[in-house]
Amino acid sequence: MVLEFAVSPKTKPPAKMSTPSPFLYSILILIVSFLCQASAIQLNGARYLGNFWSSSRTLSLLAKSRAPKYQYETKYFQQKLDHFSFADLPSFSQRYLINTQHWEGPSRSGPIFLYCGNEGDIEWFAANTGFVWEIAPRFGAMVIFPEHRYYGESMPYGSKEEAYKNATTLSYLTAEQALADYAVLITELKRNLSAQACPVVLFGGSYGGMLAAWMRLKYPHISIGALASSAPVLQFEDLVPPETFYSIVSNGFRRESMSCFNTIKESWDVINKVGQINSGLAQLTKTFHICRELESVDSLSNWLESAYSYLAMVNYPYPTDFLMPLPGSPIKEVCRKIDSLPDGASVLQRIFEGISIYYNYTGKVDCFDLNDDPHGMSGWDWQACTEMIMPMASNRTTSMFPEFYYDPKSNEEQCLKDFHVKPRPTWITTEFGGHEFKSALKAFGSNIIFSNGLLDPWSGGSVLEDVSETIVALTTKKGAHHLDLRAATAEDPDWLLDQRSSEIKLIRGWLDEHYDEKKAISAYR
Amino acid sequence: MVLEFAVSPKTKPPAKMSTPSPFLYSILILIVSFLCQASAIQLNGARYLGNFWSSSRTLSLLAKSRAPKYQYETKYFQQKLDHFSFADLPSFSQRYLINTQHWEGPSRSGPIFLYCGNEGDIEWFAANTGFVWEIAPRFGAMVIFPEHRYYGESMPYGSKEEAYKNATTLSYLTAEQALADYAVLITELKRNLSAQACPVVLFGGSYGGMLAAWMRLKYPHISIGALASSAPVLQFEDLVPPETFYSIVSNGFRRESMSCFNTIKESWDVINKVGQINSGLAQLTKTFHICRELESVDSLSNWLESAYSYLAMVNYPYPTDFLMPLPGSPIKEVCRKIDSLPDGASVLQRIFEGISIYYNYTGKVDCFDLNDDPHGMSGWDWQACTEMIMPMASNRTTSMFPEFYYDPKSNEEQCLKDFHVKPRPTWITTEFGGHEFKSALKAFGSNIIFSNGLLDPWSGGSVLEDVSETIVALTTKKGAHHLDLRAATAEDPDWLLDQRSSEIKLIRGWLDEHYDEKKAISAYR
Repeated sequence: MVLEFAVSPKTKPPAKMSTPSPFLYSILILIVSFLCQASAIQLNGARYLGNFWSSSRTLSLLAKSRAPKYQYETKYFQQKLDHFSFADLPSFSQRYLINTQHWEGPSRSGPIFLYCGNEGDIEWFAANTGFVWEIAPRFGAMVIFPEHRYYGESMPYGSKEEAYKNATTLSYLTAEQALADYAVLITELKRNLSAQACPVVLFGGSYGGMLAAWMRLKYPHISIGALASSAPVLQFEDLVPPETFYSIVSNGFRRESMSCFNTIKESWDVINKVGQINSGLAQLTKTFHICRELESVDSLSNWLESAYSYLAMVNYPYPTDFLMPLPGSPIKEVCRKIDSLPDGASVLQRIFEGISIYYNYTGKVDCFDLNDDPHGMSGWDWQACTEMIMPMASNRTTSMFPEFYYDPKSNEEQCLKDFHVKPRPTWITTEFGGHEFKSALKAFGSNIIFSNGLLDPWSGGSVLEDVSETIVALTTKKGAHHLDLRAATAEDPDWLLDQRSSEIKLIRGWLDEHYDEKKAISAYR
Repeated sequence: MVLEFAVSPKTKPPAKMSTPSPFLYSILILIVSFLCQASAIQLNGARYLGNFWSSSRTLSLLAKSRAPKYQYETKYFQQKLDHFSFADLPSFSQRYLINTQHWEGPSRSGPIFLYCGNEGDIEWFAANTGFVWEIAPRFGAMVIFPEHRYYGESMPYGSKEEAYKNATTLSYLTAEQALADYAVLITELKRNLSAQACPVVLFGGSYGGMLAAWMRLKYPHISIGALASSAPVLQFEDLVPPETFYSIVSNGFRRESMSCFNTIKESWDVINKVGQINSGLAQLTKTFHICRELESVDSLSNWLESAYSYLAMVNYPYPTDFLMPLPGSPIKEVCRKIDSLPDGASVLQRIFEGISIYYNYTGKVDCFDLNDDPHGMSGWDWQACTEMIMPMASNRTTSMFPEFYYDPKSNEEQCLKDFHVKPRPTWITTEFGGHEFKSALKAFGSNIIFSNGLLDPWSGGSVLEDVSETIVALTTKKGAHHLDLRAATAEDPDWLLDQRSSEIKLIRGWLDEHYDEKKAISAYR
């Protein structure tokens, strides 16, 4: 579900940009479960990693949150640190959550529903992936949520401190290793439970959705199908235009109100101009109710940009209440605020009022802490500097954000500086397919649902059209970031019920076909 | 082509075996190009690695051999040592042979024929894979032979000495890394040649055939099809009975003559009995014309067993002349010798005369050197102790070899002792598919030819029935180890011509379909 989604922050000073300093842009991204993190700004070569939350704080909040609680046992499995070499490395303990309460068991080949854990604590994903828990009983399915290595409790080298110590200890934090973890875990679990004949169905949202789809591609013998929700598997190299993400975010605002879009678009120059004057930063600090005086304009811009991107991802049709409460269709509310101020209101006042919908919907926040203590290296930052190189840009015509270009060179420099690691921008496309991804899936794949809400800026990097009869795209015009995986609520609109119903039907179809084939084989024997 | 194929040598003293000492058995295996190596015997826990050739000697012989010479350029490509981690490891230089003489080029989307190099010097595979060179011109295809890491000149750490130093330096010698090498190499080559649209067809024999098939499974976007000749992809875990290999070897003798089969079956006890008496080893040394006096019965038995297995693999219908000259249908000749000695001849005399067909067909050898200086760690021995765990056994009913069982425990102990590495007997089936391999291929695969000669003992571990319309099995009753990949000769029987013709037609079909699809896509656009 969730998932912070830090974009590889690569930007270049736009040639004709009105901002005086080379404004190196970037952005973070986030998640359904309303986590937001790792927005990065480059200014004169310096990169600022801002974290709006730290994992520990998030989790303690989560513990108190209203997220539904599901029943499971917590178990641990010893995994090899490097599946693809025989280097003498310490194994590590992978956590997984398991519930067999409704499982039909091996004798009836009861299915196994497995959520591909992504970049965060697995309990959090479990709590925010209600769909899997809710449908498991009707399928007689076991539910497993394995945790992604280097997140939550699944730490190599015994602790997060040791695992995140340096590039050497972090070096086994890769998607391929995580996929192999899942393959080994499933195979061993099935062996131990004599459940070899039980079909596995994969689920995943965001990066977890990418893992589910890749798992289907790389380990077709392990599962019979995958629901990959909001999985931007094409957000690499030049598979989609780099402007896609910010254009979709911007469209989310434009469709609500052209003047709202224009106000935001205008605001960056205003902020920069104010920032340049004497005591300009103090003025901005005051206008935006920032707790500690701003040290640069960019930290403010970054804070705003992150909120817009985040709003687009969680632009859900009904009110949500995770780490912070938001109204339904929050972008509509933000734009209503921006547009509704009296004629004399300044651009900055409008922006502040608008953004407060996001950062302060309850009205209880007195001032905003932009520099929420960064908790050092984050796993996703590492992944975004190694494999998950997702080029991002913003252009003048379709975006309300400042113009910037994707610059692989400066990205590499930054990653070398931050992590002492060189990104491999062409590796994911080599390993999982680039321009041939869809045709390879078509010829060499089956049983994947790519579900996307078109309001979600990540949808532009996903699969939005059917690839084959069994690799299908389910899109909802008004959906956002993997809404379908969330627990059902009374406010769910019809189109969301329809989407989930289609998913259930497709999964049922995979299972029926699987059982029919098995029956045919045993009858034949 | 070639391919030494060392089987993981795991055996247990048979409960009722007449040999007095725990006879721990094993075998080497080899290759089309007639290499034979790494036969291992365990006796009281001691393991003897006998090499019938050392790479260097083989290659110098090869240089002088009559193997056809093909034109190519030799190039090198920098590869990452570990594709699946970001550990700071030295890159290494992968050698590849390339010929673009007949290539239709990027403008006409000329195909690329790529042979998946296996465990040996790539020049040697190139010299012994005439089929690829011979058919390339008619397809307008480029030909590439990349070398497998840790073989030939493609040595990590600068030299074989350094690469083979210990388990740490050897740890990146795995099939998955080799597959990733090929994927990266192809992707980069195509990029550099603006040949992204050029379809790749894979070829491979023996372990190279396994790589070709796995490549198709794991990297479907990289190639459009694969010819996997004599690829025992199912020779793992319990996918086929462990007795399969030796039963097929034995059948090769039984079908020629029951008395020949029985003489060989009887001989092991005779050898053991003679070995036990005073000066028995001296007597055996003399009978078998061994240069240096035998130190144990097992080294003789091993020498004989290897020859039988080797004969079964290269039981070709016409005379061949590689490292040593052999008549056509050599098993027939061996059995003729064994059977044709006068009634008074002893079992040992018969065996010696028979085996001389194999070891001394020219009659020029005065004595045999069993302990051909082992050249230390061989790459395949490492692979057979890590991933390539192929259980082997021999039973009383179907085998002419001494009875022995597969014992994973003693295998592990031996590998720990020899290489300080623990085998992962379930890894290959987890990574590439076990009992679900064929059904995964069927649902999630296309365009693979599994070609096998049924005389080849490795055929029992390969795919012998069509899996789907496009994943087909081509078997020849009288074929042996990947004969189809060899250069055409005047003596090729009709069934071999038919087999190659079928392969050409299938490859043509893959290409036609690929071009049609591309055309349809561009017409649609």
